Amino acid sequence: MEKEFVFGHQNPDTDAIGTAIAYSYLQNKLGFNTEAVALGEPNDETQYALDKLGFKAPRVIEKAAPEVKAVMLVDHNEPQQSVSDIADVKVTHVVDHHRIMNFNTSDPLFYRAEAVGCTSTVVWKLFNEQGVEIPENIAGIMASAIISDTLLLKSPTTTDDDKKALEALAKIAGIDVQSYGLAMLKAGTNIAAKSEDELIDLDAKSFDLNGKTARIAQVNVVDLEEAVVRKEAFIKAMQDSSAKNGYDMFMLLITNILDSDSVAFIIGDEDAQSKFEKAFGEKLQDNEMKLSGVVSRKKQVVPPLTEAFN
Amino acid sequence: MEKEFVFGHQNPDTDAIGTAIAYSYLQNKLGFNTEAVALGEPNDETQYALDKLGFKAPRVIEKAAPEVKAVMLVDHNEPQQSVSDIADVKVTHVVDHHRIMNFNTSDPLFYRAEAVGCTSTVVWKLFNEQGVEIPENIAGIMASAIISDTLLLKSPTTTDDDKKALEALAKIAGIDVQSYGLAMLKAGTNIAAKSEDELIDLDAKSFDLNGKTARIAQVNVVDLEEAVVRKEAFIKAMQDSSAKNGYDMFMLLITNILDSDSVAFIIGDEDAQSKFEKAFGEKLQDNEMKLSGVVSRKKQVVPPLTEAFN
Repeated sequence: MEKEFVFGHQNPDTDAIGTAIAYSYLQNKLGFNTEAVALGEPNDETQYALDKLGFKAPRVIEKAAPEVKAVMLVDHNEPQQSVSDIADVKVTHVVDHHRIMNFNTSDPLFYRAEAVGCTSTVVWKLFNEQGVEIPENIAGIMASAIISDTLLLKSPTTTDDDKKALEALAKIAGIDVQSYGLAMLKAGTNIAAKSEDELIDLDAKSFDLNGKTARIAQVNVVDLEEAVVRKEAFIKAMQDSSAKNGYDMFMLLITNILDSDSVAFIIGDEDAQSKFEKAFGEKLQDNEMKLSGVVSRKKQVVPPLTEAFN
Repeated sequence: MEKEFVFGHQNPDTDAIGTAIAYSYLQNKLGFNTEAVALGEPNDETQYALDKLGFKAPRVIEKAAPEVKAVMLVDHNEPQQSVSDIADVKVTHVVDHHRIMNFNTSDPLFYRAEAVGCTSTVVWKLFNEQGVEIPENIAGIMASAIISDTLLLKSPTTTDDDKKALEALAKIAGIDVQSYGLAMLKAGTNIAAKSEDELIDLDAKSFDLNGKTARIAQVNVVDLEEAVVRKEAFIKAMQDSSAKNGYDMFMLLITNILDSDSVAFIIGDEDAQSKFEKAFGEKLQDNEMKLSGVVSRKKQVVPPLTEAFN
């Protein structure tokens, strides 16, 4: 059987990389010939999980078509979040937990999405449905993905299915969810060692909002103030990136993973700014907005923005 | 829980109506509050199945938003094949077996598609995964959908999953697949009693082909000649319908369900005609094209056309 790549979105997080590894393993067990690859290097949090579980980071690809004719996507479907030459390959499988946007195919395909907190929760179901045993390290990387995406089950995206999956996977992997999870999340919050340019690109996705391109980045911290003091430099980095990449607006969501609060820096023209204010029911003060209780880009940021722009 | 509609595509066939009935039953068992409805009256084949199994036809709706805020789609996802006000309601669930095209949401949702012959095959898996028992008549209507979509397992869209599902469902329903299936399919081939205007609209779908709207209708017969002698009247009906509805091209696929061969009548401008010829590697003779072995619009017609137009 001809080889297919399995990969998550650009600027990969622990779900994008961990679930690609797990889904590739499952598909190979089912008779496919796949290789898990990535659209970027792992971030500090993901690297922590890979190291702990004894995985090498999947190799990074720039393009898919020179090597394969077909691909399987995890944790994303929107073309602008995918490999740059996604239009030149056939998508045969998607496993995801996001909205569907601008994803078009000419043929029927396998598409499995559920409104759960993490793609690995869906892949955990697929393992069970197919009766494929989950090895210890695969269970560990899937548990890491769930911990990451749900912020240790505290994000409002968390569902009962995520809780069940994490419990089952942690048991197989032999990890203590609280201690392992907190250590892993904290590994991803060391912002002192990184420039603003790096930080706004670590976990950043582009979204089509009624024809406008919005860049939405998220940075996890254990102390909001540590990021807020660097606001001026963040805004400059966001402006430079927007000019260079043609983003119509840029939002940086800084999230305190300990108390589940966020502050956002937002740039864009007047119309965009007023739509952000409408979306969140908050005033923008000097490009800054307090977003109490907001931790999920997918559930608490993108849907109200989509609505405000439509 | 607030009520949601479950429905298949416009110009419903046995899969669209039968699977809506079955999926609504399953979702209600799982705690949702749904009503199976339809976007049109059942065709003769579907009516045969409904009568045999003791179902009333689902009521026909023109719009969804006046009655519900959210809907579940079966057997389709493309907006132009859905209820006219689909943009005004939220799609929470999709179960399908088609390509994905122009289907966009602002929120994550449950989306389950597989490249199998019939949507009921996917719903059969969902019943099994959820551990919900399938009643006799629900099994019967799902079996009817599979028989219809796969032309008694003879269409190239047929997969092993369809065979397994049909076998299991026929057993629960207590029907003999061959005798029941042939009687049901034949009930849908009585074209003598219908006008050309009716026939080109019975099982017709609109497709976006790189910005052009293609109308593709299919009629099942047990003797191609019976349809071919009415060619002139068919072409006129297709021209009138295109003018009225703004279709850029119209293809009528006439399929002999006994020997799995088709002939097509095709109208459109010169560019469209040459793309049809390219797609199928056949010459159009006086708006007519012989399509040996072609029985599946989804697998053998739409993908080559999509390719030819891109």
